Amino acid sequence: MGNSFGQLFRVTTFGESHGGGIGVVVDGCPPRIDLSNDDIQRELDRRRPGQSRITTQRKEPDRCEILSGVFEAKTLGTPITVLVRNKDARPEAYEPMRETFRPSHADFTYQAKYGIRNWQGGGRASARETIGRVAAAAIARKVLAAFFPKIEIVAFVTQVHEIIAAIDRSKAKAAEVEDSIVRCPDKAATKMMVDLIEKTRADGDSLGGVIECVARNIPAGLGEPVFDKLEADLAKAMLSLPATKGFEIGSGFAATRMHGSEHNDAFEKRGGRIVTRTNFSGGIQGGISNGEEIYFRVAFKPTATIAREQDSVTSSGKKTKLATRGRHDPCVLPRAVPMVEAMTALVLCDHALRQRAISRS
Amino acid sequence: MGNSFGQLFRVTTFGESHGGGIGVVVDGCPPRIDLSNDDIQRELDRRRPGQSRITTQRKEPDRCEILSGVFEAKTLGTPITVLVRNKDARPEAYEPMRETFRPSHADFTYQAKYGIRNWQGGGRASARETIGRVAAAAIARKVLAAFFPKIEIVAFVTQVHEIIAAIDRSKAKAAEVEDSIVRCPDKAATKMMVDLIEKTRADGDSLGGVIECVARNIPAGLGEPVFDKLEADLAKAMLSLPATKGFEIGSGFAATRMHGSEHNDAFEKRGGRIVTRTNFSGGIQGGISNGEEIYFRVAFKPTATIAREQDSVTSSGKKTKLATRGRHDPCVLPRAVPMVEAMTALVLCDHALRQRAISRS
Amino acid sequence: MGNSFGQLFRVTTFGESHGGGIGVVVDGCPPRIDLSNDDIQRELDRRRPGQSRITTQRKEPDRCEILSGVFEAKTLGTPITVLVRNKDARPEAYEPMRETFRPSHADFTYQAKYGIRNWQGGGRASARETIGRVAAAAIARKVLAAFFPKIEIVAFVTQVHEIIAAIDRSKAKAAEVEDSIVRCPDKAATKMMVDLIEKTRADGDSLGGVIECVARNIPAGLGEPVFDKLEADLAKAMLSLPATKGFEIGSGFAATRMHGSEHNDAFEKRGGRIVTRTNFSGGIQGGISNGEEIYFRVAFKPTATIAREQDSVTSSGKKTKLATRGRHDPCVLPRAVPMVEAMTALVLCDHALRQRAISRS
Amino acid sequence: MGNSFGQLFRVTTFGESHGGGIGVVVDGCPPRIDLSNDDIQRELDRRRPGQSRITTQRKEPDRCEILSGVFEAKTLGTPITVLVRNKDARPEAYEPMRETFRPSHADFTYQAKYGIRNWQGGGRASARETIGRVAAAAIARKVLAAFFPKIEIVAFVTQVHEIIAAIDRSKAKAAEVEDSIVRCPDKAATKMMVDLIEKTRADGDSLGGVIECVARNIPAGLGEPVFDKLEADLAKAMLSLPATKGFEIGSGFAATRMHGSEHNDAFEKRGGRIVTRTNFSGGIQGGISNGEEIYFRVAFKPTATIAREQDSVTSSGKKTKLATRGRHDPCVLPRAVPMVEAMTALVLCDHALRQRAISRS
Repeated sequence: MGNSFGQLFRVTTFGESHGGGIGVVVDGCPPRIDLSNDDIQRELDRRRPGQSRITTQRKEPDRCEILSGVFEAKTLGTPITVLVRNKDARPEAYEPMRETFRPSHADFTYQAKYGIRNWQGGGRASARETIGRVAAAAIARKVLAAFFPKIEIVAFVTQVHEIIAAIDRSKAKAAEVEDSIVRCPDKAATKMMVDLIEKTRADGDSLGGVIECVARNIPAGLGEPVFDKLEADLAKAMLSLPATKGFEIGSGFAATRMHGSEHNDAFEKRGGRIVTRTNFSGGIQGGISNGEEIYFRVAFKPTATIAREQDSVTSSGKKTKLATRGRHDPCVLPRAVPMVEAMTALVLCDHALRQRAISRS
Repeated sequence: MGNSFGQLFRVTTFGESHGGGIGVVVDGCPPRIDLSNDDIQRELDRRRPGQSRITTQRKEPDRCEILSGVFEAKTLGTPITVLVRNKDARPEAYEPMRETFRPSHADFTYQAKYGIRNWQGGGRASARETIGRVAAAAIARKVLAAFFPKIEIVAFVTQVHEIIAAIDRSKAKAAEVEDSIVRCPDKAATKMMVDLIEKTRADGDSLGGVIECVARNIPAGLGEPVFDKLEADLAKAMLSLPATKGFEIGSGFAATRMHGSEHNDAFEKRGGRIVTRTNFSGGIQGGISNGEEIYFRVAFKPTATIAREQDSVTSSGKKTKLATRGRHDPCVLPRAVPMVEAMTALVLCDHALRQRAISRS
Repeated sequence: MGNSFGQLFRVTTFGESHGGGIGVVVDGCPPRIDLSNDDIQRELDRRRPGQSRITTQRKEPDRCEILSGVFEAKTLGTPITVLVRNKDARPEAYEPMRETFRPSHADFTYQAKYGIRNWQGGGRASARETIGRVAAAAIARKVLAAFFPKIEIVAFVTQVHEIIAAIDRSKAKAAEVEDSIVRCPDKAATKMMVDLIEKTRADGDSLGGVIECVARNIPAGLGEPVFDKLEADLAKAMLSLPATKGFEIGSGFAATRMHGSEHNDAFEKRGGRIVTRTNFSGGIQGGISNGEEIYFRVAFKPTATIAREQDSVTSSGKKTKLATRGRHDPCVLPRAVPMVEAMTALVLCDHALRQRAISRS
Repeated sequence: MGNSFGQLFRVTTFGESHGGGIGVVVDGCPPRIDLSNDDIQRELDRRRPGQSRITTQRKEPDRCEILSGVFEAKTLGTPITVLVRNKDARPEAYEPMRETFRPSHADFTYQAKYGIRNWQGGGRASARETIGRVAAAAIARKVLAAFFPKIEIVAFVTQVHEIIAAIDRSKAKAAEVEDSIVRCPDKAATKMMVDLIEKTRADGDSLGGVIECVARNIPAGLGEPVFDKLEADLAKAMLSLPATKGFEIGSGFAATRMHGSEHNDAFEKRGGRIVTRTNFSGGIQGGISNGEEIYFRVAFKPTATIAREQDSVTSSGKKTKLATRGRHDPCVLPRAVPMVEAMTALVLCDHALRQRAISRS
């Protein structure tokens, strides 16, 4: 269990990194939404390995096929299934993992939970699983665009290790993000980040960082009290991504050092609508969107796979050493940007449908 | 929708701060668990208003009644309903809120979502709603104790505003936490925190802070890939609590500044079992518990209700001023500690049942 | 688990026949629906014991209280909880059931499943549990009326034992049904049924029968392929009622003896809209309503509780005899009519909300 | 929505009759169950078109591929995806359906619901959809066999049109069923049924009938009060199959003409365990299995697709005539037998897992 997400726009991903393929079934997509293979492929290409010199050099074309739910380039209202075949599988490269638990990977915990695991790669815990999410989110974006034509969801890298970019959150544009191979819309920071990532790879080590995401032009009213608050579903969505360690919405952890008189977002009327003067709330109050920009930050740990030799144990508990050769991302953040956007789109699309069900206007 | 939590240990809370009462239905509780009213009342008393000089002086006895699902002091396997009547309702005190949106409360968003709201108090968005969660969690704790006799779930305040307590996470004990009216097991810090909270109340202002939670003696194997990762469900659980702005598990945001070689938790064999040398993972890897201590931190914003006058608007958008008299918590953290523990117990109990369903040992 | 019904209009019932009370939480009700205690009480009175000379003489006033989710006589969009206290509890009357399993009751199976049961009455398996369903359905009817002003849901008894009423399904009206204490809108049949029921009670025995239900003026388009077909959800709804043994929609079992050329419902245009010439489909095709009358029949077994002495065993397997004194319905059908209507309303309301979520018109 | 079934053994089917393929994702399968392609293919071959002279002559090899969730011939605990490509697609044969609604098919209702439909064949409403169910059930059967080694699930045709077979329900064996091309373990009846089916096909017409299903050696305790009663979930499961019009469990509609004194199943002790003398309950009491044989009957209408010319209308409401050439089943029952067994296995497997979650023995 646990492979589905969403109540009404319900996404079920499947597949291991090695085996027949990776994919997703989307149940609950409204009918008559324009949808082509290209809409999905475009997003998959953004998370594909090998897209720049700072990502893993694995070559996975990751070509998607829509198996169901679309007819004459429109959604039917029936389940949409997208399949991506696994190609660059080199299971023999994983032979040492048959017996050895890689530190801070899921090898040990899958074995503990299931008494079996596909040791040929990360199996279900591989970041390849996010292909299904990104494919589903490409569909969610089309649905959202049909409901809220001005909606924008933009994520970007705002920190790599100690390097913090200078970004005006409210002005960040998708095109600028894509111009940077780090997906950081601050050119100076990008340069420093690229240098650091390359140096770290050469050292056989890895880096973490922070991704920020902004969703604009979301109407007030999305989010369900009390457990399915919009920020609660976003938090779950983000912490379900591989390598994430933290989430903060609006003021986040900084709020803990503020006074209420400073943190409260005063209401005022501007341009005919009720808005807030500040936005420490991050666009959500009481779990429901208030019409302001929704923004949040996600912490990513340094990649667990590193070239340096590490201590570990075998499944029988014998001491061993482990070193991984080549082909991994020294820093997952550039490729995680589309994943963060994807999960955001899934949450918003699901809540948009939920709100339509009860809306009486 | 959105008022239920959990897949197998399924909790549905109900009730507004003003009206007939607040309560919860727990569906899926295993049968033959010892359960008395006292088991629940004890936990409710920990989150009750008026319990110390630094919490709100509202007087709500919050006496619970078990309406169903228990027979001769044992659970029946049928839904357990717990009801707490609202007592200290003074709806007239809220008369000004009929037309005015309180800053950083949910008044505006509920109105936007539903076109109606119970303006007599926080309604469904009131922290009183957590009574249902705490009651359900008292049951969850009994279930967990039946499965894992050595389990411990301990939360505590680790930061109020700028005051950071010195606490050895692995040694913190429930009794020490309860000895402090701030629920901070560092006596020196407690004293400073109490002083700051009292001073801030006198200033008509409010404070935020951080709560940390530790769960010990959880076996490896709880948590479901890929969306219902244990940390994902914990993140959702915490962000569904009122006033929370952030969540971090294990190394959290600090991980973003570490190298993989430093952050990876090496496996080793100790005392006959496979353990990790460090625990930056926070007891969870790939979404599944690994048998180490699970720990995480939750950021709380400063209370939105403050005595100072604030700018706001009426529902028709007219400028107005707002000041709240008396009876609110200048700092929610002491009373939020049992809420954090409650949500942790609900997540762990649900995942324990999920694992039992498929476990083959 | 299993105490909730519906995806979007989600109903959770709770309570045993003896204990604090019986009730329901409805999560997902749209806001701003007019709702009073009387709306619910009216329906509860229709299923109440003691309402006529042919029902049980148990005296349960079954007064309901709305605990949450309603404000100034309108729904808030938050969970609506309705509670009915148990009053006429005479647990001592059930003392013999402590050790003995009543034939064709749920005593044995609850004991087998849970290892414990509330032997003071039917516990959770009591028909009192349907109070929660009827209360929830009173709300569902208000929601449906808001969406489809001309909707009608009418159930009636069409057969008791061998007596089959002559009823024109399409003309049956609620008022005529209520005029009959059997809830059979055929006066001659009513008289025969009443006589038979009274005679059977005098004999210490019980009777079964058939209830038919019609739902009119439901638009085309409700029902979800492929598992949540409208007739599938209706079938589940009906078979979840106590004492039901069968369900048939439209032509039902009679269809098994027809040819396709006879059974197919030809389409034609009438009054500007596409209709079917016949309606063997029962208003549903491919799981989705087609705008015609939805109708189905439900089989009820004879009441398991009878005054005559029966063979049984104790929980330790010892042979024993069992006889139940007084106070039960010799035929459940009259009081089951509101239950059948209730479950129909719950299914239709849930599917109406589901359709709104994806509807693009 | 509505394309998933089950709470813990959760099955999501996808695919239209024309398009990339048909398949299923099973989430929640326990790990370390032996599973091969052959286990699934064997069941698919039983529902395949063209398997005998009385079924449609369409040629679909329906070869399945396991895309995920299995490693070294064992289940991993992760989602299992099975895909069957569509082969014998002749969309041009359906060109007339582009504009015309076939009587008693789902063309009209899908159009009404979604405003779009895949008119190239039955689309999502095609019986091809059941491929996914049968594949999932092949897995469910392996799981059930691991839990209850002596379990047997056997369905058979007991009636075609007016021909009623003489079958001793408790003795019917799978092998005998498979020996009959009608899947009726009464040889004399089989002969008559085959003759009638062939004659009816020659007449351009179709037939309905009844399938009975027996599940043996299910322990007491499966089934959840109150909505997820075992018979309620079976009823839903059966009514979700194409062409079904009715369901009855145990005594079924015949119960309506019995007295309680006759219908009640007296308990007695036999062979060390508590059993019932009769089994009108059909193996389920209060929604929970009691350890006796579970048996029920399902009514199938005559196939909607017939060669004879029929009246219909186009989507714009214009009168038209419709005749379907060749290639359909004049009687769906022989191929529906594996579908009925499949849905039974899915219900039982799901409830078995649900019971494991709370079981304390």
